[in-house]
Parts: sequence; C-alpha cells; structure tokens
Amino acid sequence: MNFQTYIVLGGLIIYDNIPFFEIYINTSLEICEARDPKTRAGEIKEFTGVDSAYEPPLEPDLILNSGEETEIESIQKVFNFLYEKKILPEEAMYQLCGQPIRQLFEFNKEEQNKLIEEIGNNLNFKIEISEIDLQWIQVLAEGWASPLAGFMRERQYLQCLHFGQIFDLKKKCQINGERKEGDLNCDEEENDGEDQFPMLGPINQTIPIVLPIFDNQANLIKSKLSSKPKIQLIFKNKLIGILKDIEIFPHRKKERIHRQFGHFVEEKEIENGHPGIKLIMESGDWLVGGDLKVFERIIYNDGLDEYRKTPSELKQIFEEKQCDCVFAFQLRNPIHNGHALLMSKTREELLLKGYKNPMLLLHPLGGWTKDDDVPLNIRIKQHLAVLENGIINKEWTILSIFPSPMCYAGPTEVQWHARARLTCGVDAYIVGRDPAGIADNLTGDSLYEPSHGAKVLSMAPALPGLEIIPFQVAAYDKKAGCMAFFDEKRSEDFQFISGTMIRKLAKEGKNPPKGFMPENAWKIIASYYQNL
Amino acid sequence: MNFQTYIVLGGLIIYDNIPFFEIYINTSLEICEARDPKTRAGEIKEFTGVDSAYEPPLEPDLILNSGEETEIESIQKVFNFLYEKKILPEEAMYQLCGQPIRQLFEFNKEEQNKLIEEIGNNLNFKIEISEIDLQWIQVLAEGWASPLAGFMRERQYLQCLHFGQIFDLKKKCQINGERKEGDLNCDEEENDGEDQFPMLGPINQTIPIVLPIFDNQANLIKSKLSSKPKIQLIFKNKLIGILKDIEIFPHRKKERIHRQFGHFVEEKEIENGHPGIKLIMESGDWLVGGDLKVFERIIYNDGLDEYRKTPSELKQIFEEKQCDCVFAFQLRNPIHNGHALLMSKTREELLLKGYKNPMLLLHPLGGWTKDDDVPLNIRIKQHLAVLENGIINKEWTILSIFPSPMCYAGPTEVQWHARARLTCGVDAYIVGRDPAGIADNLTGDSLYEPSHGAKVLSMAPALPGLEIIPFQVAAYDKKAGCMAFFDEKRSEDFQFISGTMIRKLAKEGKNPPKGFMPENAWKIIASYYQNL
Repeated sequence: MNFQTYIVLGGLIIYDNIPFFEIYINTSLEICEARDPKTRAGEIKEFTGVDSAYEPPLEPDLILNSGEETEIESIQKVFNFLYEKKILPEEAMYQLCGQPIRQLFEFNKEEQNKLIEEIGNNLNFKIEISEIDLQWIQVLAEGWASPLAGFMRERQYLQCLHFGQIFDLKKKCQINGERKEGDLNCDEEENDGEDQFPMLGPINQTIPIVLPIFDNQANLIKSKLSSKPKIQLIFKNKLIGILKDIEIFPHRKKERIHRQFGHFVEEKEIENGHPGIKLIMESGDWLVGGDLKVFERIIYNDGLDEYRKTPSELKQIFEEKQCDCVFAFQLRNPIHNGHALLMSKTREELLLKGYKNPMLLLHPLGGWTKDDDVPLNIRIKQHLAVLENGIINKEWTILSIFPSPMCYAGPTEVQWHARARLTCGVDAYIVGRDPAGIADNLTGDSLYEPSHGAKVLSMAPALPGLEIIPFQVAAYDKKAGCMAFFDEKRSEDFQFISGTMIRKLAKEGKNPPKGFMPENAWKIIASYYQNL
Repeated sequence: MNFQTYIVLGGLIIYDNIPFFEIYINTSLEICEARDPKTRAGEIKEFTGVDSAYEPPLEPDLILNSGEETEIESIQKVFNFLYEKKILPEEAMYQLCGQPIRQLFEFNKEEQNKLIEEIGNNLNFKIEISEIDLQWIQVLAEGWASPLAGFMRERQYLQCLHFGQIFDLKKKCQINGERKEGDLNCDEEENDGEDQFPMLGPINQTIPIVLPIFDNQANLIKSKLSSKPKIQLIFKNKLIGILKDIEIFPHRKKERIHRQFGHFVEEKEIENGHPGIKLIMESGDWLVGGDLKVFERIIYNDGLDEYRKTPSELKQIFEEKQCDCVFAFQLRNPIHNGHALLMSKTREELLLKGYKNPMLLLHPLGGWTKDDDVPLNIRIKQHLAVLENGIINKEWTILSIFPSPMCYAGPTEVQWHARARLTCGVDAYIVGRDPAGIADNLTGDSLYEPSHGAKVLSMAPALPGLEIIPFQVAAYDKKAGCMAFFDEKRSEDFQFISGTMIRKLAKEGKNPPKGFMPENAWKIIASYYQNL
C-alpha cells in the first residue's frame, strides 16, 4: 500500500468514521515469485522483499496464510472476520457461507473434567443409552441437526411435530395454559434463557431428535430437578457425554407416532407392524431434553469409520476440491445402473447450468435400519465396487456415511434427509418416488403415496438455499438392454426390477438382466444373500 | 390549499416526479360549521363556502364523504387508494389494515347465469353436499379462511397436513415424482396458473377445508377432467354455488386423520370413538378442490341468522364502534362466571395497556357439534341471558356466531379457531386449557395434553398481528362464594365444577353453587337438560 493510499485511507478513517482493519496476507517469497516471476528477475529495483526490506505488520487484525491455505479458506476467513466485527450482517453471512455448523463436541480434557466434577454425588444421574440413542448423539454432536444444542426440549419437540420446523432454541416451554395475575403479555420468552447460537430463521426439522427415558429414571431425576442436575450418558459402560440444563416432559408416544408417521400400529400387531413405530412404542414414557456435550468422536471400529465424515469435514473436502455445487444422493439400498444414470445425468445438467465442478455426495444412511435391509458394510462394499467399475465417476464423487438412524416415516423423513445435508454444504438434493417404501401391515398397500415424498419436499419450508431435484424413474429397457429413464410412450419395453426380485435372483445364484448392475457390484449382493 | 402550496406542489410534481392525487373531502356546510363554529359567526370575511363560492374539484382521484362515513372508514379509503395506486406497499397495507378478506360470493344474477350456462349438458356434474359441507362452504364464502379461493387443492391440503400452513394458492400439484428429460429445475411453479389474490406470506391453516366425494362421482368427473368441468353444489335440491377449475386427488383418510388428530380410531370402535374422526371415515375416498363461487348468503332460518355476521360485517361493526382492540373468545359451551371474570379482566388489562375502547367478540361456534354438546340455540339463549344479567357488559361485547363445524382436534384445531378470527380484525385471542376436551375411547384419558392448546398456539407460525392470551383457570372459590382465578396456594378452597356435574345438577333440578352462573342463564341450561 503506498503512502498516498494511507493518506486517503487515514482521511476516510478520521473524517468518515469508517472502521479500518489491517489484514496480513502472509505469503512466502517463493510463492510470491511463483505467482509473479518478473520480480526475482531483478527487472524492478528496490522491490519490497527482494532488494528492499519487507516489514510485516506488527499487530495485524487478521492473518491470511496465502499459499498454505486454499483460496476458499482465505475468503472464508475474511468473511468470518467481517462477520465477527459486525461488518457483514448475519443474513449475508448465511447466504455467503451457508448454514453455520454447530458441533457439540467438547474434546478439551480440562473442560470435560469440569463438566463431570460439577455433578455432585447425589446428582449423579447416569442414563444407559441404546445404540440408536448413540446414533442420534452422533447426529447432534457432528452438527447434522444444527443449530440444535442437544436433545429436543418440549418447545422444539412440539414445533417439530406440529410444524415440521424449529423456530427457536429457547430453553423452556413455560406456558402451562395459565397466566399469572396481571400478566397480560404472558411473554414467556422474556423469562427464558436465550440460546446464544445465531438462528437466522426457522429451520426445517420434521423428525424429533429426543431421548426417551422410563418412569423410574424420570421420577428420580424430576425429584432433583430444582438442583439443576446433569446427566451422564453411558453406552456400554463408557461415558459418551453430558446432558445439562435439562428438561423432562411427557413422551406422548402414541400422539407422536400418529403425527410423525401419519400411521399407527396397535399393540397386538406391533411385531409384524412398522419397525420404526415399534422402536418408539418400546421406548420410555418421558423425554429428557437438554444441552449436549460429547467427549469423543463416535466411532464404530467396523472398518468403515474412514467414511464417517462430519459436516465440517465434508465442507472442507468440497472446498479443497474447489467444488462449486454439491448434489447429494441419500440411499439405503444397493446402487443399480439406473441410479448411476440419474447421478451422471444430474451432473451433466449442472454443468450445462454453468457450474464448473459439481460434485456428488454419495451419502448412504449408516444408522439403524430394519432387519431385512442390506447391512451397511455390504452396501459400502457394493458402492465401492460401483465406483471401481466407473459407472459413477470417482473423480466427482465423495462417498461418505450419513450417521442417522432410519425412521421409515415417508414424506416426513424425506425432509429430515434433505435438511441434514444442508449443514455440509449441499446445494441440490435428489429425491426419489418412495423414499421409505414400507407397506401397511394390515392392507399390504404402500404406506405412503409414492409421489408425496417429492411433492412435500418440494413445498417444504425452511430449507434455505437447497434445490430439490425430483427423482426420474429408471427401469430396465429390454430393447436397449440397459437401465434407462422410463418412457411412458413405450412402457411395454420396460421392466421394473423389484427388491423382492433382486433377493430371489441373488439367493438362487442367478443374474439380473445384463446392464442392471455392474458385475463386480452384483457379486457382493449375491454373496450376501447366499450366505444369509 | 393556498396558491403558494400549489406552486410548491407543482414544483415537486414537475421537477421531482412525485405523483399527485386530488382527494376531495366532501363535507356538508353543516358539518364544517359544527366542527368550527367560528366560520359561520362571520368572523372571517370571504370564507370559502360561506360568503365566497366553494368550487368542488371536477375530477377528484378520491372522494371522502366526511361526516357520512366514519373517520376510520375515511382512513381506510385513503389506504386502499394509496395501495391501489401502488404508493403503499403490500406489506404496509397488511400491517395497517389487517389480513384482506376474500369473499367467494357471486351475488350478480347475470354472472351466476354465465357460470351455470358455461356448464355443458354432458359436463353437468352435480354434487349433493352434506350440512357440514355447507358449513365449510359458508366458512370459505364469507372469507374466514382467506385467502383460500375454494376447497383445498392437493398442494394446500399437503401443506396444511404437514406444516399447518398454506404457502401458496397455486393451481396444481404437478410434481409426480418424475422429472422431464432435460428439465433440471423442475420448476413446477412456472407451469401453474397463479392465483391473483395477494398472499403476503404463509398463513396458518391447520384444519383441511376439503370436499370429499365417493368413488363413482370421482371416476365420472375424472373421465371428463380434460374438458374442465364445473361442479354444481346442491344442498337439499337447491343450487348453492359452483366449483370451477377443479382438481381431484385421493382422500387418504387414515393418513389425514393420524396427522390432523394425532389419533386414530379403528373401524370396530368407530361408533364409540372420536366423533370428528367418525365423520371423516364415513366420507368419500376422493377430494375435489377448486375455486368456489357461492350465489347467496348461507342462512338457516332458525331465528339466529341475525347473529351470523361475516368477517366484513364484524370489521365494519368494530369500525363503527371506534374500537381500537378486539379480543375474541371462542366457545361451544355455556358461559359461567369464571369465563365472565376472565373476559372482564382481559378488558381491564387492555385498558391498562392504553387501549381506549377494547371490545369483546363473544364468538360461539355455530357449525356441527357432537350430539351431547349443548345445541347452538340453547347456547345463544344462555349467552344472551348472561349479557342481560350484565356480568359481561353488553356495551363492549359483540355476540356473533362463528359458522365453522367442530372437529375436536385439540391443539391443531385451536389454531384454526384463532386464525379464522384474524380475518374479522381480531387483535387478541383467548385460549383455554383444553379447547377440544374429548377422551380417548379406549383409555378414557384426555386425548390431548391440556396445556398443549395454549403451548402450540403460542408458538404457531403465520398468525400475523394476533396476540395470544392463555386462559387463566377459574374455579369456584368456596370461601369467597364466587368464581375466581384458581390460586394454587389455597387449592383446598377451590372446587372445579365439571360438565358432568352441571348436567347432573340440571337434570335433577338442583342448582349449582351460588355465583357459578347468573340465575336466568342457569334456568335455560336446566330447562334444556330437563326436557332432553
């Protein structure tokens, strides 16, 4: 910056009260040279840093390590800085950098001990959590449900069930249907401790993320509620984290199931009924909400942990790959050539729209699934085989595992699957015809109208910046001998290959029509079913 | 306006391109004199209109009939004018004048005939509607569900069931889970005919307002759908109105019930189960949505029609009474002194807040109710007796009938009751503990958590400008011998008088505790139950 510029800037700062920040773009001489070779060539005399001394700023407001960090990282740092200094308003920050990710990890040992020590002996509540609870803890801690601070409180639970959204992170649901004498405003919000995390508007959240507990535990904790107890969350004798500033409220399981699933299963049918509903019916009658702190990354040591990327990690990967548009594909089934066709086609169309480097987040669901779904490890093997085969190009694909358990809640759950991907920087979401295909146990009919997933998601509120791409149905084109987009005009040429058919062929050691799935990928599925 | 002002204005108009409108405040000399007696007294010579001629504007842009219309009406006319001229933006208009009321009446005979004639012979569909359908038609036509243009289309129905709101008035729900080759945007909105009525944001709508039809009707109409049929709505051999630009979609009754009621009743229990659910289960498997035109006011000739005021009429009444705040009380039960106490108290508090003339809209639900509820005519008699007695002051109360049928859908329906009142200019809504108290037929428990009505309503989105006042529980204070707000600290002094107790006392010809209900009002209830 030359003297003249300083003078002008000084004038602006003094006379116009414009804030001034010094940003140090710390770049090695080597990198500067590489960027502009003329400088070293000695063409310019007294060039700063070459034959004239370079004086680095003594107390810069921000340092950008140009050459070490990527261009995108540097830009991100400037945005963050301007946001912190209140130059960039929240909404602009949101638009520029996407939804902020709220991670709930506390890796610092000292802080962990402080949290544990604060728990007095007589307030030493421990809750043994299930594997599904653990998966939800992972979802929360890694930030997939940002900006949730932990398991839902009653307000958030009711907002989720009634409106499919979260409107606030307020602490308590204090309206008891009564109002205090003289308090016309009944402004319960004023009485609440307000969560400090920026919430820039409602956010879509259709699936309750809650921690059910049983009567005895609930009664014990409720009796000590005034002492503000913390709760240790224990999985297989290991302390996973702490739940603090807690709140206990009724888990009206039946009402929840009706609202969440648009369906219900009577007690006597529960074994043959809906697997997601069964899980809830077997859970406790109380919910404990509160702020969650998790002490370690949740890992499974199943050989798949390398694929379990957090939203931040994924965001980082997309930045490193200089990717300008991410499209996500949620799946809990093997990939066939029809899926591959759809994904390739989507990328082509994104390129046509002007994106330079659109990337696919191939994002299989990794949490609990029902018994007859193909297990995660087999699916990942199959997906890797598909990538190996090349019908989906590895160069523009990131394979990662989405840690959420499955609910099988049709159009309600489709929204959760889309919304969770917002946090890792996804721009476009591909939605299929029947994303949680499951039958009514009494009638045998498909529980949800096949088009409702796409219809409801396409209208869903509070999914800022997410483009919804409805799934085009692919089927086996007998004439062409490959998977192709279904064409109504020559429907007789197409064969729909069902999951039942796949299982039957696999078990009997037979092959599906050529062109349905790469051979190496089919072998993995066939071998799984033959060894069942 | 003096010459100088004209010159200045002229300058502004010419040089600064500021639009100029001439507004004629047409006021009779008598009224001008009354407002400023000095003028007639001859104190000022050559006073315009007195001893100097008054030249009324030849072509004013707007005429305000000051003295004939109220101040509020004049202001409203100026706002409307400025809005039409695009000076006042929509949002400002909305804030100043409340939600616009969309009535669906077509009173003009010529227009009616045009609508009927357009229906060719082979497209002459007639649907016999039920009394409850008629009540919903009344709700729609009078504008209680503004800006709905008629019975819900699939988009609105799904938005209502999944999000408790309506986001758009778009014509069709075209996403079928498939997308056309090369159409990445899949922008179904572009293909839709857009409703022209201004919709200034999402509006709360939790109860589906739909017209169910049976398979045979649906199949017949669907076979002619490409010819854009209109449907004549017939009630007891009378043509009520026309449904046009229609759309037929599945009435997934079970799923609807689960989502709307958070409850379900199995077929075999349906007779003893939830009355609102029974109605839906007995209705058709298809819904027909479309734009509604209603040819006459819906009247019942039951002696109560004078109380059936439309939102526009109520708004007009509040304006005439120069009321600056309307608080509404929804009820479907007799009024006792506890209710009266609450309403008086609310008014006092509104006065304390600085309102000059807060008025109560005492707004009993007038549509279908379950068999054991007190019928409307008895309730109106009872309410009139209460007003006669004076424990609710007639001076600040408007008694009117809300035409909606009852659904008994707890917190979901509470929102409908609040939201419908927005259209008639209500500013504050009183919400009780268990607004649709009904028991689970199997467990006998209250179907909804008593506080959820107030909790969910207090968090409900898209209720612009409506203040929610949670109901303070009143009970019989045995010590004081009157109804009083329940005081936890001396709970032993209070007696809760249940509906069952009321019915028992009434049937046996006994009286409730003195101070529970005015005697004249009690007699009406007692006589009703004794004559059952």
